[in-house]
Amino acid sequence: MIIDIHTHYTTEPAALHRFRDQQLAGVADPARAPTATGLAALGISDEDIMQSVQPQLRLQRERGTDLSLFSPRAAGMAHHVGTEVVSRQWARVCNDIIHKVCTLLPERFVGVGQLPQYPGVSPAQCIEELERMVHELGFVGVNLNPDPSGGYWSGPPMTDRHWYPLYEKLVELDMPAMIHVSSSCNPNFHATGAHYINADTSVFMQLIQGDLFKDFPTLKFVIPHGGGAVAFHWGRYRGMCLAMRRLTLADHLLDNVFFDTCVYHLPGIRLLTEVVPVDNILFASEMLGAVPDIDPETGYAFDDTRRYVDDVESLDALSRYKIFEGNARRVYPRLDALLTRRGHLAGEGIAA
Amino acid sequence: MIIDIHTHYTTEPAALHRFRDQQLAGVADPARAPTATGLAALGISDEDIMQSVQPQLRLQRERGTDLSLFSPRAAGMAHHVGTEVVSRQWARVCNDIIHKVCTLLPERFVGVGQLPQYPGVSPAQCIEELERMVHELGFVGVNLNPDPSGGYWSGPPMTDRHWYPLYEKLVELDMPAMIHVSSSCNPNFHATGAHYINADTSVFMQLIQGDLFKDFPTLKFVIPHGGGAVAFHWGRYRGMCLAMRRLTLADHLLDNVFFDTCVYHLPGIRLLTEVVPVDNILFASEMLGAVPDIDPETGYAFDDTRRYVDDVESLDALSRYKIFEGNARRVYPRLDALLTRRGHLAGEGIAA
Repeated sequence: MIIDIHTHYTTEPAALHRFRDQQLAGVADPARAPTATGLAALGISDEDIMQSVQPQLRLQRERGTDLSLFSPRAAGMAHHVGTEVVSRQWARVCNDIIHKVCTLLPERFVGVGQLPQYPGVSPAQCIEELERMVHELGFVGVNLNPDPSGGYWSGPPMTDRHWYPLYEKLVELDMPAMIHVSSSCNPNFHATGAHYINADTSVFMQLIQGDLFKDFPTLKFVIPHGGGAVAFHWGRYRGMCLAMRRLTLADHLLDNVFFDTCVYHLPGIRLLTEVVPVDNILFASEMLGAVPDIDPETGYAFDDTRRYVDDVESLDALSRYKIFEGNARRVYPRLDALLTRRGHLAGEGIAA
Repeated sequence: MIIDIHTHYTTEPAALHRFRDQQLAGVADPARAPTATGLAALGISDEDIMQSVQPQLRLQRERGTDLSLFSPRAAGMAHHVGTEVVSRQWARVCNDIIHKVCTLLPERFVGVGQLPQYPGVSPAQCIEELERMVHELGFVGVNLNPDPSGGYWSGPPMTDRHWYPLYEKLVELDMPAMIHVSSSCNPNFHATGAHYINADTSVFMQLIQGDLFKDFPTLKFVIPHGGGAVAFHWGRYRGMCLAMRRLTLADHLLDNVFFDTCVYHLPGIRLLTEVVPVDNILFASEMLGAVPDIDPETGYAFDDTRRYVDDVESLDALSRYKIFEGNARRVYPRLDALLTRRGHLAGEGIAA
């Protein structure tokens, strides 16, 4: 089984965008706010939903991947926009539509949620929606924005006690968090080209500086986009961790921090698998949209990351199983439980 | 000849730190401001200076490098601290002490300057010091801080016309700029572990988005730390550049943008040399201080980057010459002129 742990619903029905426009219009003029907030009231039919995910289904078939952990469009979260109430309503409807996709196509999509974060507001305010995701929507993970200010980084680092109420709940619910920023309103940072990558790097460094996993030994973070700059500067981070913590990266962080394979060329994936222990790498593509084109140098899509993993000769069958399935089941226990309930037992996918 | 294009004076005499303390004390209480501003008045003797750079000289000998492009401590620039006048005085004294080192040991050190930037102030205010660096101090390059706010990124991107007066002068003077932030006052960003790397990545992406080198075809930027995350995500950037500009990275940027080799492990340097054209890579170590220890995995210093370049088997003699000397002479024309005047002709260093 090949599990893609990082995909976004970037082909949402137009009705969802209309709702968002009304929502934000309502901030300026309450008379324009949407009156209905439930998904049903948006007038999106099951057929609309099925139609909207045909591109994902086609790519799953073409690339031979089985299951996508599916979350709302990352740039669409835009936690810095609107008000706290707007953010809460928006997270709710975005999670509802993800849930709908996962209900219609349960073998193809499993949900990962959007939190109703808002700059300056305690993440404890997200707990209600987090519990709803788990208990009502059946989600297995959540995207956690380390910079709800949208590129101004005005909040505290991820090791600050500000975040602890949310971490306590994540641990209680056995939910890992993918560290994922949203759009940038800072003109210095292109969202997918700088802000995303910088956030990955910055949070990893915060985790070196701090001692978060002493307080939360079972908390798990997935750092997307191959960890930002981390693998490329693995020597720098190994050295800084030794200097600052007197610990190796492995001893300080690697029971709790994982990286995905959203790196869009073979040399990058080769480096990632060379320096990061195989137990800390989870297959993902970031489909659809970050870089949707064909690479003229290879003739294949930039985001066809399965091809790069397949092409790393040094990975043996067990390593491939871990990257494609095993690590995902370990890091996302609710996914593992779901798959086991459905009869997909862990370890079946190890090639001879 | 092996030229290290990125080194910092991190072993400054204590008198320089005392001056800085007095300067900043003077912001709070003008009565405590230093009365003298010239280097001579600081009471630093030639012997103090010679003593202070013994670690650099020892490492040059041990590692077989010949010449260091030497600039003030990067984190020490701290453009966000104090006032515009403080920043100007501070840049001046830092440049003077670099000049002193280069005068005492001209075969070992060539100067790269600190600009008196200040948040919210036009970079045009730096031109006077830039001209002094070139005409009085004989410097060959300059460090340009893309975020003088120190981690809040409150100014415009590097492609904005805000920066153009400085670019015009850099072009006129044939001076390349290394894009180098300073310390971070944002607790989200560790300076050397996140802010430096993020700045490299962010500016590269700004340059993809913009068209700066259409306006300044001869302007040259060196992006340090191997380009931040850029080489690791080379596929992502190739794809985004194609999507946004309909141009390859090579056609859009690589006549003007260069990367150094401050990446502290062999797999990183191997990736850099695999994906970035050899004409765009300049040897550097970032000595002393970013990661000063011994790598327990190799038994050698993390920042002994010459060893990594030596160990990349795929580089032929001409490629090594370019990385170690030739590209530096091309990107820093004033360095080339200086070396030529001294009888070091370009191309002599190409091994058989």
